[in-house]
Parts: sequence; structure tokens; C-alpha cells
Amino acid sequence: MIYLDNSATTYPKPLKVRQAVANAMQMSANPGRSGHDLALKSSEQIFLTRKAAADFFHFSKEENVIFTLNCTVAINIVLKGILKSGDHVVVSSLEHNAVMRPLEKLTQKGISYSVAEVFPCDNDKTVNSFRNAINGKTKLIMCTHASNVWGIKLPIERIAALAHEYGVLFAVDSAQSAGIVPIELDNSDIDFLCIAGHKGIYGPMGTGMLIISSNTIPDTLIEGGTGTGSISFKQPDELPERFESGTPNYSGIVGLRAGMDFVKNQKIETISKHEFMLIKYLYKELKKIPKVKLYLPEPDENYFVPILSFNIDGMDSENVSAILNKNGIAVRAGLQCSPMAHKMMGTLETGAVRISPSVFTKLSDINYLVSVIKKI
Amino acid sequence: MIYLDNSATTYPKPLKVRQAVANAMQMSANPGRSGHDLALKSSEQIFLTRKAAADFFHFSKEENVIFTLNCTVAINIVLKGILKSGDHVVVSSLEHNAVMRPLEKLTQKGISYSVAEVFPCDNDKTVNSFRNAINGKTKLIMCTHASNVWGIKLPIERIAALAHEYGVLFAVDSAQSAGIVPIELDNSDIDFLCIAGHKGIYGPMGTGMLIISSNTIPDTLIEGGTGTGSISFKQPDELPERFESGTPNYSGIVGLRAGMDFVKNQKIETISKHEFMLIKYLYKELKKIPKVKLYLPEPDENYFVPILSFNIDGMDSENVSAILNKNGIAVRAGLQCSPMAHKMMGTLETGAVRISPSVFTKLSDINYLVSVIKKI
Repeated sequence: MIYLDNSATTYPKPLKVRQAVANAMQMSANPGRSGHDLALKSSEQIFLTRKAAADFFHFSKEENVIFTLNCTVAINIVLKGILKSGDHVVVSSLEHNAVMRPLEKLTQKGISYSVAEVFPCDNDKTVNSFRNAINGKTKLIMCTHASNVWGIKLPIERIAALAHEYGVLFAVDSAQSAGIVPIELDNSDIDFLCIAGHKGIYGPMGTGMLIISSNTIPDTLIEGGTGTGSISFKQPDELPERFESGTPNYSGIVGLRAGMDFVKNQKIETISKHEFMLIKYLYKELKKIPKVKLYLPEPDENYFVPILSFNIDGMDSENVSAILNKNGIAVRAGLQCSPMAHKMMGTLETGAVRISPSVFTKLSDINYLVSVIKKI
Repeated sequence: MIYLDNSATTYPKPLKVRQAVANAMQMSANPGRSGHDLALKSSEQIFLTRKAAADFFHFSKEENVIFTLNCTVAINIVLKGILKSGDHVVVSSLEHNAVMRPLEKLTQKGISYSVAEVFPCDNDKTVNSFRNAINGKTKLIMCTHASNVWGIKLPIERIAALAHEYGVLFAVDSAQSAGIVPIELDNSDIDFLCIAGHKGIYGPMGTGMLIISSNTIPDTLIEGGTGTGSISFKQPDELPERFESGTPNYSGIVGLRAGMDFVKNQKIETISKHEFMLIKYLYKELKKIPKVKLYLPEPDENYFVPILSFNIDGMDSENVSAILNKNGIAVRAGLQCSPMAHKMMGTLETGAVRISPSVFTKLSDINYLVSVIKKI
């Protein structure tokens, strides 16, 4: 099988990630609960992962790294923990349902939102639409770092600066960028970074992180036992315990550290360069096929992450993906949980076929993909 | 090391659980997202686990089995998804902070609660205190199936009948009972069963379940992409998607199925019998040591799960646990996140030393424990 669905989850996982998970499953107790050696060793593994995550995102406060089930939970904590009735939020026109569905839910509580249009390859216009969407009630700007459909990258440094110019908090959904685009939190104006552990970071599914860089600490969504301050029914204020109730996904978290180590050793820049080489090559090849519809200019590092979506004239994307699957190629078609991104390109009805490589993808894989598309 | 901290998490995990997790890490794509073979095979694995969980708890609707990060999240979904301002809840005097902390939080939203005192070995009096705690505004009774400190088992069938007599919903926290006490949902009046996957079920940490047996479906706590109905910003109503946004803990869920298979093969009754044999033996041995303080009658299957907590006169429980640890014995001391259970026995200041065996615990382990305690 040629796996080109790495934006859904990277496959395969690096050997060291699988080994780390296996070791964690073999030898561990509940971290942060009991005081015996095995529990303390397990707590240390969690701490080391927190520290590795802080290092990975160039961030100085490891206790502000929160482990979550996935990026969606991290996003929900930010939106629901920050926004109150009367507040207004600005999001981009490329958001995933992980942002739009909790936001839509919050409208029932008197929270409103505006959608700032993203202009591909024109950051000035994009930043301007964010500026125009801000009003006197705006409390938060939240946007994806990169579209999970079109790969379009948003100028988050400029949007962060804009947010702070207006005294507005800024949260980033980095599900499609973490591990592919360097993010330096201490040097940025990002307040909340929501992270998927199982995509560009090559960790196990079921791992995500929220990094809180702001002094504004969200309210909790979940409370429960933390192994700290147990005498009190009040959820502790301290980070990370405040947001980590109940038993964590221990083996997943340990695997996540191995994933970050893997990316660090391979170097983000090298991974990104490799994937862009493949995507640019694919773009050029697809461009030669008359029936293939491409929606954007050739992707480059300034304005994109290495994802490419396309359609074949007169065919539904799901059909194309089914034929690719029969030929041993795994991709994702349909709407990829991002209807706004499809509306923007007029692909709401057909969806689009998405190609997302990983560090393990070879040029021969792309050549084979092209040959099958030519036959279709 | 002699591990007697299985109420925190079972250790070791059965070989087949570890193998299932390793296989899941080696070969998987994001389930329920894409349409290619690997994604479909992964979706099937999730479905099979849902079905196995329904079978395990003798329940007919596998789609009502929700996978969560842990039991705490399941409890939070029930409490926050069911209760509205003005509602009243009844809980037991043995609740874990997983129940008390979200409940305490909910008092800010105009929800009130009463604590029904549990009388060890006297179910009539216990049921009566639940009855007396119900008032005209009571919407829900939630209680632990068994105390994580004292092992005291609550008569949940009778409390369920009481709840339904009063038209009140009934939720059970089975963190300390699932896999040790048989639970037959279709034959019970339980509306919501909250489950830890990593204790008596021998699955990986980071797995929990909520089984909804009621027609009353909670509001959602988290919304996001589900891979279904993607064109809409509205969270789908369908179960289980309604409660499973974002990428699941795939390898954990697959491991959870292996855990349930393990328990099924070993037979719950056999596991329970083995653990009770150990705990009863330990009780008798500790009873002979003058300085050891036991708080309850000898535990039997009618009124307890196989957990035993004790103290040594004049010593803090954490000290005792530290000495045991030095002698290679892993237990948990302190408050075990359940201050009310300690208040009940007057152990809020000292905590208590908790011994919790698993199917892998041997009689020689208990003998060694007793010999070390004698020396202390």
C-alpha cells in the first residue's frame, strides 16, 4: 500500500515511537498518583515528555504544556474556557469542524463569531480581513495554522501581532503544521497553541496538547482527581493538573515524546523540504493532465504546507479515491471535516482528493500515483 | 517488585493486551475518516471493541458505547450533560473527586447536591439514606459502585430501583468494579455506566467508556470533527459520534478489547474469587498484628470488592508506604482522591495504606507483605 493520507494520521509510525509505546505498556504504573518507585518513574516519563514538548515549541514553561486526548479537546478547552456570553470571536474561512462545531454550540450561550476570509498567497489581504472582522466585543482570534484541505498557510505571526494590537487573545490550531512548520512560542504572540500529536509529530493517535502561553488561564471543561490537593473538592488551579483530571494516556504520551525526538533528529526543515519536493513534483505532473483540476498556484513554503488537493473533471472525489484505493493508494476524499474550505473553492458537492505525504513517502510513490491518475 | 496498587492501574498488563497495542501501532490509519482499506480496517477494529464492550456488560446497543480518555471524562459528560440550573443530585458518601469536583463546579451554575451516607454491610440503611436524600428537584442519583479506598460495595441494583421509583436518572461510577463485579446492563435500571478501561479490565491507561442505557441523551461537552455529516457545523446527534470528536486513542481502544477478552477468558467470577482469597487471607493476618488498625469487618463478596486499607498505629500512611516501597512493595497511601471516604473513617489526617491485588497477585506476595508489616 502507498499511504498518502498523512494529514489524517501519519503512517507508518517510526520504529522508536512503537518501541516507546511497547515499553510503556510493559512497565508502568499510574503516574502522579502513588509514591512507589514504578509510579514515580512513570511520572518522570510524563514530565520528560512535557519538557520535550516545551523544547520542541521553544517554550520556557513546561508546566503549561497540557496533554489532551486530541487537538479537538485542546480547541474546546480554549473556546469554552475563555469565552463568555457577549464575547465575539474571529476565525478564518479555512477552519475545521473542530473549531466551527464548538463555536456554533457557543452561539447558544450568547457568543458570536465572524469569519475572516483568507486570500491564498496574499497575506496583506488576509490580515486585513482579520482586522475588519474585529469589533469592540472581540475577545479571541482563533485560526488554523494551515488548511487541512488546501494546505494554505496563514500568516499567524502577523495575525498574532494584530490580535495584540487590539488587546485580543490569539489561539492557533496547529493540527496540520506542528512538526512541519517550526513554531517558536517564546518568540511569538500566540496565547494558546492546540496541537495534534499523531500527525506531523508522528506520535500515537489519541495524543494532543494544549500549550498555554498566556496569563489568561481558561476555565476547566473537565474536573476530577488529579492526585494533588485531594482533600478539596475544588479543582486545583495549578498547571498542568488543572486540565489533566483522571488517568492519562500514559503509553501515548511516552510515544509522543519519541515522535518529537524523531522529528527533532530528522529536522523539521529537512522533513518539510522532502515533502515539498514531492508535492511540487506532483503539482507539475498533475498540471500536465488536462482533466485534472488544481485549484491553487504551485505550493511553496511561504504560503503552504505540503498538502495537495485536486479533482478529476466530471468525477466525485470519493469515486477517484475508491479507484486509487483499488490500485493500492490510500488518500482521503470528501470534505475532510472542513466545509468552509470547500465552499471557498466551489467543491462542496464533489469534495476533493487530498494527497498528504510524510517523511517516509518516496518519489516513486508519487510517480505511481500519477500513473494511476493518468489511467483514470 | 510486588505490585499491590492495581486499583490505580493494573500491572502488569496481559501479554495479549500489549501485543494488541503493538499491532495497532504498527498497522493503522485514522478510523472513521478516510475510505481506504487501512482506514476501514481500523474503523472495524473500533467497531469490534464497541461490540465487545456491549457484550462484556450484557448490553444490546453497541452504538451507545462511547470511548473516552478515562472514567473521569465519562462522569463529567453525564453530570454536565444532564444537569441544568435548579436540578438536584444525590451522591454517596464514598465518592471519588472524579464525581465531587465536577459536582462542586456545577454548584456555580445553580445545581445542588446531597450526600447519602453509606452504611457498610447494611444495604437497608444505605438505600434508606438515598431515599431520604431525594427531593422534588432531584434529577439524578450518581454513585460509585465500590469505594476506591475501603472496597465497600454499594447495592446499585436497589439504588437503581429506588431512582426509577422516583423517576430519577441513575449513573454509576464503576471505576473500581468493572471487570471484578459482573454488571448486566440490559437487566438493570442503570442509565449511565462510567467505566475505567485500565483497572479491572486490564486495558491501557488512557481508556475509558461511557455506556448510555437511557433514552435521555446528555448534551455534549466537546464538539468537533466526527467524519460524519461534515457539511454541517452542528454536532451530529447520532451515537457514538455525538460524543467522539477528533481522533480517538486507537491503539488504546484496540488494547481495551484485548483486556476485555482476557477478563472474559479468565472469567470475572474466577478473578474475583482469587482476589478475595488473597484479601481475606491478608485481613486475617493483619488482624493478628496488634498495631495494625483495620476499619471494617472482614471483606466478603456481598458487601465489598477486593481492596483492603489499613493503618499502623502512630504512623502516617505515607510513611508506611515509603517503607513498603523500600522493601519492594508498591501500594498507594494518602487520600486516594476520596476525602469523604476518609472522613467517614476518621483517616483524613493519616490517610490509609491501600492494598489492591490483581489476577496476577500471588499468595506469596501477600505473605511477603505481611512479613514486612510485621517488621514495621
